[in-house]
Amino acid sequence: LRKDNTGYDLKHLFIGAEGTLGFISAATLKLFPLPCAQATAWVAVPDPAAAVALLGRLRDAAGDNVTAFEIVGRPALDLVLRHVPRARDPLPGRPEWQLLVELSGARAELGATLEAALEAAAGEGLVAGAVVASSEAQAAALWALRENVSEAQKIEGVSIKHDVAVPVSRIAEFIARADAALRQSFPGVRIVCFGHIGDGNLHYNQSRAEAESNAEFIARTGAVNRVVHDLVHELGGSISAEHGLGQLKREEILRYKSGIEMDMMRAVKRALDPRGLMNPGKLL
Amino acid sequence: LRKDNTGYDLKHLFIGAEGTLGFISAATLKLFPLPCAQATAWVAVPDPAAAVALLGRLRDAAGDNVTAFEIVGRPALDLVLRHVPRARDPLPGRPEWQLLVELSGARAELGATLEAALEAAAGEGLVAGAVVASSEAQAAALWALRENVSEAQKIEGVSIKHDVAVPVSRIAEFIARADAALRQSFPGVRIVCFGHIGDGNLHYNQSRAEAESNAEFIARTGAVNRVVHDLVHELGGSISAEHGLGQLKREEILRYKSGIEMDMMRAVKRALDPRGLMNPGKLL
Repeated sequence: LRKDNTGYDLKHLFIGAEGTLGFISAATLKLFPLPCAQATAWVAVPDPAAAVALLGRLRDAAGDNVTAFEIVGRPALDLVLRHVPRARDPLPGRPEWQLLVELSGARAELGATLEAALEAAAGEGLVAGAVVASSEAQAAALWALRENVSEAQKIEGVSIKHDVAVPVSRIAEFIARADAALRQSFPGVRIVCFGHIGDGNLHYNQSRAEAESNAEFIARTGAVNRVVHDLVHELGGSISAEHGLGQLKREEILRYKSGIEMDMMRAVKRALDPRGLMNPGKLL
Repeated sequence: LRKDNTGYDLKHLFIGAEGTLGFISAATLKLFPLPCAQATAWVAVPDPAAAVALLGRLRDAAGDNVTAFEIVGRPALDLVLRHVPRARDPLPGRPEWQLLVELSGARAELGATLEAALEAAAGEGLVAGAVVASSEAQAAALWALRENVSEAQKIEGVSIKHDVAVPVSRIAEFIARADAALRQSFPGVRIVCFGHIGDGNLHYNQSRAEAESNAEFIARTGAVNRVVHDLVHELGGSISAEHGLGQLKREEILRYKSGIEMDMMRAVKRALDPRGLMNPGKLL
């Protein structure tokens, strides 16, 4: 059932509640057909602002057929190249910022659409280099570079992680200001940044290059969070874009959400779970 | 901000609450560019089942570029032809069911895509006739036929209205069974059916042809509602797809929503508006 306006939207109230209002006892899945055609590219851009502009150009050219637009910073890609067997850099010159771009849809000419849009964007200075996959195997290899970032980070060692979102129009400002503030307060910090440009959602993680000094750095997680989360808040963003508050960010959120919002959330929790039985200690 | 998982989704809780939890004091609008290209057609189909099948074929051919797929039954179209100046039937033979179909997107060849898909569907017996608009003026004239149904109904006189949704896969069954049940219980009933096939959302309205006997019929609104709403409920649908419960359906919903759901809604209302100040008497 796609449309229903018979009272409060209990479904959306439960989604994202992290089990604190109830649990799933049954689920209905909606299936979508596989796309008939896909075109995948790895694209170097001069900076994150160019990435956001390129997303606009691609949407102009291909509309809703733009189904992936993932940014990967150089330190994130370097981790994959170091730790994942057979991973190799698709582009020469070690560009600082790269994108995994995919178009999906019902028609075969998506590859030509993608190539024409990238060429036009290169003429505007938004694209510094690109390779379009010419086979499913090549497309899979490009996806592996993006999908293995988390795994490569894990192999490299512990790091401080942020799952943040800002309005898409503030992404470039967020990265520039957060990078600068962290480099000033924590000299030698390594910033592993990747994520979903179209959602304004960045995985913005930090560690030090040296194992020994990293342990010291990790001990200062609270101070690093403060720099990153304060800026996210200033830019109208979210400190928990996809992964929920859980226990880790349960206290942190009190700094950023208004008292009225917190009171409303607590009132809803008391109303629906007055005895506090559902996933206690999480979120609230 | 597109992504935010910091606790309960208060935005969706307020959307559809009909002002019973609070009121809008500010709004942020997201603007979308106008589509670069559109293709619009008026299509006769043999029956509602063919309409649902045709929607599937069009999605296969054009994916998310299918931006309108509106069904209009013969009695609904006849009201427009009678009451709206300059309205004329785009197709010969007075077909019982017709669709307004529109593709929108970034590329110019949408018209060719639409024509090819309609031709292929005609070969399968899903399309009995079609006209594709060859100018913006023609497209606007087709849209006027659909958009003036409500106005034409108003000019014709009072009727019993239902704003219902069922899963898309049950639309044809709903129309066939509801039509038959109403014709049996209320001989001479005129069924004005139109709506959004892609959402499973039908405006399913009834009146009698004669002004005098219509007044008598309208007095039996409760009995008519029972036939329509019971069937909607049996098919897993909603008795209020777009327009909310308000006062008219505040008691009616008690027949169909579970006691647990109603209790949860009342608990949320008490939690957020304990003094009952917000839009009292509506929805709950």
